[in-house]
Amino acid sequence: MSVSIFDSFLTTTDMIAVFDDTAIVQAMFRFEQALSQAQADEGLLPPTAARAIAAVCNAQLYDIPAIITAGRRAGSLAIPLVKELTKTVALYDAEAATKVHWGSTSQDVIDTAMVLATRDALQLLDDGLFDLTGRLLQLAEQHLATPVLARTLMQPAQVTSFGFKLTGWLAPLVRSRARLRECAARALQLQLGGAVGTLAVMGEQGPAVANRVAAILGLKVADAAWHTQRDEWVRLGLEVAVLSGSLGKLATDLSLMAQGEVAELAEPSGNGRGGSSAMPHKRNPVSAMIALAAATRTPQHGAALLASMGQQHERGLGNWQAELAEWPGLFLSAHGALQALNDAFLGLQIDGSRMLRNIDALQGLVFAEATSAYLAGVIGRPKSHELLEKMTDVAISTQRHLADVLTEAVQADPALRDHVDLMHLRTLFDPVAATAPAHRLAQQQLQSLRSDIAALNLAHTFHQ
Amino acid sequence: MSVSIFDSFLTTTDMIAVFDDTAIVQAMFRFEQALSQAQADEGLLPPTAARAIAAVCNAQLYDIPAIITAGRRAGSLAIPLVKELTKTVALYDAEAATKVHWGSTSQDVIDTAMVLATRDALQLLDDGLFDLTGRLLQLAEQHLATPVLARTLMQPAQVTSFGFKLTGWLAPLVRSRARLRECAARALQLQLGGAVGTLAVMGEQGPAVANRVAAILGLKVADAAWHTQRDEWVRLGLEVAVLSGSLGKLATDLSLMAQGEVAELAEPSGNGRGGSSAMPHKRNPVSAMIALAAATRTPQHGAALLASMGQQHERGLGNWQAELAEWPGLFLSAHGALQALNDAFLGLQIDGSRMLRNIDALQGLVFAEATSAYLAGVIGRPKSHELLEKMTDVAISTQRHLADVLTEAVQADPALRDHVDLMHLRTLFDPVAATAPAHRLAQQQLQSLRSDIAALNLAHTFHQ
Amino acid sequence: MSVSIFDSFLTTTDMIAVFDDTAIVQAMFRFEQALSQAQADEGLLPPTAARAIAAVCNAQLYDIPAIITAGRRAGSLAIPLVKELTKTVALYDAEAATKVHWGSTSQDVIDTAMVLATRDALQLLDDGLFDLTGRLLQLAEQHLATPVLARTLMQPAQVTSFGFKLTGWLAPLVRSRARLRECAARALQLQLGGAVGTLAVMGEQGPAVANRVAAILGLKVADAAWHTQRDEWVRLGLEVAVLSGSLGKLATDLSLMAQGEVAELAEPSGNGRGGSSAMPHKRNPVSAMIALAAATRTPQHGAALLASMGQQHERGLGNWQAELAEWPGLFLSAHGALQALNDAFLGLQIDGSRMLRNIDALQGLVFAEATSAYLAGVIGRPKSHELLEKMTDVAISTQRHLADVLTEAVQADPALRDHVDLMHLRTLFDPVAATAPAHRLAQQQLQSLRSDIAALNLAHTFHQ
Amino acid sequence: MSVSIFDSFLTTTDMIAVFDDTAIVQAMFRFEQALSQAQADEGLLPPTAARAIAAVCNAQLYDIPAIITAGRRAGSLAIPLVKELTKTVALYDAEAATKVHWGSTSQDVIDTAMVLATRDALQLLDDGLFDLTGRLLQLAEQHLATPVLARTLMQPAQVTSFGFKLTGWLAPLVRSRARLRECAARALQLQLGGAVGTLAVMGEQGPAVANRVAAILGLKVADAAWHTQRDEWVRLGLEVAVLSGSLGKLATDLSLMAQGEVAELAEPSGNGRGGSSAMPHKRNPVSAMIALAAATRTPQHGAALLASMGQQHERGLGNWQAELAEWPGLFLSAHGALQALNDAFLGLQIDGSRMLRNIDALQGLVFAEATSAYLAGVIGRPKSHELLEKMTDVAISTQRHLADVLTEAVQADPALRDHVDLMHLRTLFDPVAATAPAHRLAQQQLQSLRSDIAALNLAHTFHQ
Repeated sequence: MSVSIFDSFLTTTDMIAVFDDTAIVQAMFRFEQALSQAQADEGLLPPTAARAIAAVCNAQLYDIPAIITAGRRAGSLAIPLVKELTKTVALYDAEAATKVHWGSTSQDVIDTAMVLATRDALQLLDDGLFDLTGRLLQLAEQHLATPVLARTLMQPAQVTSFGFKLTGWLAPLVRSRARLRECAARALQLQLGGAVGTLAVMGEQGPAVANRVAAILGLKVADAAWHTQRDEWVRLGLEVAVLSGSLGKLATDLSLMAQGEVAELAEPSGNGRGGSSAMPHKRNPVSAMIALAAATRTPQHGAALLASMGQQHERGLGNWQAELAEWPGLFLSAHGALQALNDAFLGLQIDGSRMLRNIDALQGLVFAEATSAYLAGVIGRPKSHELLEKMTDVAISTQRHLADVLTEAVQADPALRDHVDLMHLRTLFDPVAATAPAHRLAQQQLQSLRSDIAALNLAHTFHQ
Repeated sequence: MSVSIFDSFLTTTDMIAVFDDTAIVQAMFRFEQALSQAQADEGLLPPTAARAIAAVCNAQLYDIPAIITAGRRAGSLAIPLVKELTKTVALYDAEAATKVHWGSTSQDVIDTAMVLATRDALQLLDDGLFDLTGRLLQLAEQHLATPVLARTLMQPAQVTSFGFKLTGWLAPLVRSRARLRECAARALQLQLGGAVGTLAVMGEQGPAVANRVAAILGLKVADAAWHTQRDEWVRLGLEVAVLSGSLGKLATDLSLMAQGEVAELAEPSGNGRGGSSAMPHKRNPVSAMIALAAATRTPQHGAALLASMGQQHERGLGNWQAELAEWPGLFLSAHGALQALNDAFLGLQIDGSRMLRNIDALQGLVFAEATSAYLAGVIGRPKSHELLEKMTDVAISTQRHLADVLTEAVQADPALRDHVDLMHLRTLFDPVAATAPAHRLAQQQLQSLRSDIAALNLAHTFHQ
Repeated sequence: MSVSIFDSFLTTTDMIAVFDDTAIVQAMFRFEQALSQAQADEGLLPPTAARAIAAVCNAQLYDIPAIITAGRRAGSLAIPLVKELTKTVALYDAEAATKVHWGSTSQDVIDTAMVLATRDALQLLDDGLFDLTGRLLQLAEQHLATPVLARTLMQPAQVTSFGFKLTGWLAPLVRSRARLRECAARALQLQLGGAVGTLAVMGEQGPAVANRVAAILGLKVADAAWHTQRDEWVRLGLEVAVLSGSLGKLATDLSLMAQGEVAELAEPSGNGRGGSSAMPHKRNPVSAMIALAAATRTPQHGAALLASMGQQHERGLGNWQAELAEWPGLFLSAHGALQALNDAFLGLQIDGSRMLRNIDALQGLVFAEATSAYLAGVIGRPKSHELLEKMTDVAISTQRHLADVLTEAVQADPALRDHVDLMHLRTLFDPVAATAPAHRLAQQQLQSLRSDIAALNLAHTFHQ
Repeated sequence: MSVSIFDSFLTTTDMIAVFDDTAIVQAMFRFEQALSQAQADEGLLPPTAARAIAAVCNAQLYDIPAIITAGRRAGSLAIPLVKELTKTVALYDAEAATKVHWGSTSQDVIDTAMVLATRDALQLLDDGLFDLTGRLLQLAEQHLATPVLARTLMQPAQVTSFGFKLTGWLAPLVRSRARLRECAARALQLQLGGAVGTLAVMGEQGPAVANRVAAILGLKVADAAWHTQRDEWVRLGLEVAVLSGSLGKLATDLSLMAQGEVAELAEPSGNGRGGSSAMPHKRNPVSAMIALAAATRTPQHGAALLASMGQQHERGLGNWQAELAEWPGLFLSAHGALQALNDAFLGLQIDGSRMLRNIDALQGLVFAEATSAYLAGVIGRPKSHELLEKMTDVAISTQRHLADVLTEAVQADPALRDHVDLMHLRTLFDPVAATAPAHRLAQQQLQSLRSDIAALNLAHTFHQ
């Protein structure tokens, strides 16, 4: 494991592998190999030199902990890595050894390695979003007419449809998937500027070499070295943070609906998942837990990227290093959250009858607004208001259903009885009927989301 | 002033006015007015009612501090505002009073008011970027061949061109200007969902009303109420944070170059600007100071938006309120920074001869790499390396210029004298010649930036 | 109002007044007045000069917005303020005018003004904590034996006592009150160092003047000017952040217990508090809302202080200004939260019977652990485990109470009937009996908290 | 390595070992062993059971990656660990196996393990502070009379003493060392509360067991389980953040003074440290770099602790897990920074003559204030002011030294010649003499710091 135990616990093995020590070092070697290949292609070094370098660009051959230790003294991981690479190349081809890393700088190799790792990380997020948006779409379509309490300020408010709620969770994830690709298209660019970003060593051939390196690695050619202009890179990281934020919103709702006293949703159980032997009634929402942990940590990781932007002059002191160290956390958290929620939705238990019972427990008060509107139409607003206020008090104090209390009041009062359509009044208290506005809006939105998802599924992703 | 004294000090009067209490309240009234107008247009209320409401939708008529105080009790500023509005309408038209705010919820009016204020705030940022990018472009073009030290890890590294450095500052600002508009096109949307986002009260006419309100206010119609799905809104705020980050990078460099011991740049002085009567040599870089303060504060303001995303169910408890309160800070900081840097660049003193002297003070050592490359070509890499290492030591210990030391060594050694072209060797130490690679790259990048800027200047901005 | 509308909404009028523009400017004048008085006392200027200065050290005499505007150009609010003060003194005493602000620097006056304002702010927090800890102590003592569900991972877990829960809320607030005073005793110190912290202008009399100024203002004398060593100051700010964190924890629990489906607590209602006319069943927990907003914002404000610590050399560029601007937010949030929770607890509705019903709804499963322990003692652990697992499944699937199911099983099985004391078994399901361990622990802790509170109430606070 | 490559690079092998997976798991076993030992001592289980458990409480016996993977499903690392431990104990003693972890909860074992690891981490910080404060004290004493420029707002201001500057760096570190111990004395407490913090399972013997466990582990007994009341723990983490802030301030100054154009300080070089073969003049301040990276990251890590405080009810969902994962970062950063600065100060190159030259380069203008004061005394303030303003302009425009220009002016003007003591005037421009006020203040402060350090060195630290 290349992250600490409590980090490991909150993420996935796949994402750990992407930012693993060996993976990063190997990506650094990919840069060095591509650079010498490109220089050979441009005639700046003999093809044999490029081949000699390529032959030993393999992380397995090197002592990575020793490189880290030497890197601390040197102030850069790339310095000892390039030194070891050079020594190893020299065993086979002394001339080639003089051309290792030629014309580039520490930050070129490290930034490009991070870009390569990040591309893999983005693919994992995209895959996870493919799954989760697919599941949410399907559930949303199924539950368009399932009544559930809408809640505002953590209080039951009115009746909505569970499909509407699911659509609300789905839409930002579809947007995130699209935006991550947009940001990636801008930010996954080669870093190659040499010591101060001017490609001075390679002279006029610098840009041509950069084009070839980018092509070999499948990366965008940057407008200029971005050693200390991190805006596109930071935007990408922040987009991942937004994703964790949207997943955290979903997890918040899930955890609230899974409370014992609400019990409308439950995460799947069994096979060591979220149980407690001492407390047999417990089913801990462990997927929500992981997503909430991600959402708690992520704002700070996003802030760290922003706080690292003031990089001095042509290459920064401390802030670049801080950014590098904070970067993986955004992806580790987001993928942990995504996979956890995919696990949860794979076997999510949706208790539609409990949703109804929770509505029912509010004795019809959640329908007061609609009822008031109807009555205002038939008996005028002042009378309607007065009647409803009174009957609401009666319902609360007697713990009876507002519909019953109102019906009795109407029946008892000839002045009302003639105007109020009791059949219609009862329908205003029908939870399924009450989902109609939500149903309508969600249906329309799902149509557009379905086509967005289809388009995303067809399009190319991060590997050009 | 509607912000605290130390906030005021770091921002602009214009941006304070945008988020001023009165401005926000007036924007809330604009929403209420547009809502009733739209409902009248859809036949949901009489045109007279809409006119009665419109007539008193004027912040000047109300006691704003009293609304704030009542808002604390109510848990929402909109509740007392709507109450006061209703009372005021009732003075003129009792029936219209029953339709005030009809079908909408507190968050509808407040979020929409923030969108309206934010649109004005974005216009100010866009205007500031128009000025600053224009100035930087002009300066960059002028200084393409001005030699200046490139510095890495806060140490002099090699020679670059000041125009290249200016281009580095310019490019992210051009990107920010474009991205702010992209984000705005997505995030400046009407909020209108009613109590739980379903537009239930207005029935099937809800979407039509929403379309009309959006049209009246010049806002985008949202796919769905975004009461608790804040991703687009947060992206916009984060984009402002990225801008402050890029301005902070510029200010970092500016403050470093303006140090007494570097003295390559100086902010304009005079007229009470950054001076000190006790210390006549001081010229405090007060514009950089404001931009650095913004960059120090902004990561946290960005984090606050992300931290507020986990809004519960259909409307959040505490987190929405936190987001609202943190939002203006991002714009206040960014505009303070932008205006400060515009002030600085309006009269920026650029000391090209000091730039040269600073290069010269390094005794030619910054040219060692280029010299080494040339000598390797004529006398072989091992000899070249040995010679340069020796002469570098001599230069440092005797405090002489490397070019002189090298010239003497070549002249004294017949084996070198015949191969080394001393005329050419001297040119390798020419700072202006050394700017060539930077000059070339910057020239190309400026061409593309110039056309980006021109396109941005022509396009429509935030008001549809 | 000197903070923005959405800030105002979340804090108190009292705390706004503490950090109000006028209050800060007046505190700056208090510093200038104390400085000249101290210098006169030390014979460094004539008593008449000190009197002349004192006579016009009055914020009412000056145009504060003009000072802010000039401050932006000057890079410091103190520069135009001192200039205006000097001009005003000069109207009466030209000689005294030359001695205004003598020997001190901008940061001396501004930091000291912030210390003075902060002392007032701390007194407000201490008063608020006096109230809230008093209320919580009283409630905790009343509810030592009130059964309530303990909940872990947002799931019902076991039974605890509500007094135990209240004690858990109380203890950190008592600690905060004590620690705020400790931090204040260290951090409320005079800032007086002159231009670079050496008190050079006042020569050997500098320290004596500092002692006198501190005595006049009732502040601690610092070991050294703390212009750029902000550790004690930041610790104080972070201590306020910890308070908001503990209030946020309380508010989290309160909001969860006030949910419609849990309904164990309710904030007081009536008089425009947290109600909704359209949704008569709603009672929004608006106090919890304000405290949660504070807890959401505060981590970032704390981070901003830490992020501002790297102040350069003898006085910082941008970071000090950032710290000043972020500072009031910590106090505004904390006092808003404190007052809101005081309001909530003043009329908090505690529904002990609903607490019992919520326990009951779990069909005795929360007592499984205790039951299992008892049965293990009489029939051995393996049999006990097997029996309980089976009966738990029965209870869940038949929706019956575990006690009933178990009783029947015991009665039906002669092997069990002889060993199991059914009377005792029933007591294991008694919620009140189940509170015993919590009751015991809380009682002991309350004894110690009561004496801590009494000691805090007696001790002097922030004004020496 | 149990942290990612870019984290490793910025910290120390020692601190990585403290929070290593194996170390944490071993600490969890220490808790389990101590718990059963204590329970045996209290007669709650047979001594043989405690011995059987102790015999297998050894991290080496278990598959840690498998525990992490199972922990993700279970929602807690402790669940699979306890399960594996139970299985292993059962191989030897089936009865003992039923008593593993008895009466405690997942969070008890994990929090206590973190406390144990943190105690080791604090010892490392204390050791590092012992070294660094010792070095700074010695240097400060040596350089009390070494003149150096004081700089404010990143501009040269006046002359101070380098010993004064060193004292400024030293004092907050002495404070941090003391405060870390104070916070530790409060926060290094046993976590033992059982499922919901009431120690219910162990009945009345719970507190006695807790006392024994605490004694075995050398930890404080808590007033109450602190499962969701994290204030003391967060204060400790924030105190580490303050340390990183103070180290960052030191590193900021160091990096500024090590700039090529300032060159007053240089980090030690040689042996692969901070060099660049292509740029022989470069000596990168790599220690400052590491400390600056720590200071850039730490505010966010501190914020994460604060953001995690709102833990729900008796045990939190997501926020506790977030806190655990963020915790080590604070210590990793701080120790990396501390060790890096210890390395830097071990061989720090202090160039006193360059400090003098940098003062000299300002042509005496930094002495203008003192000169003005003297002249005001002899020729009156208005004349003095006028003269100095004029001569300052002359000095700047002619690039001559103010002392020379002034001397000439005095000599040329009979009205001045008779009053101005030219010998004395020259002494006002003597840098060494100008250090007197700083020297005096620092000397006094060092006396008190010396005794604080001596007391800290003698006192016991974290292991009781």
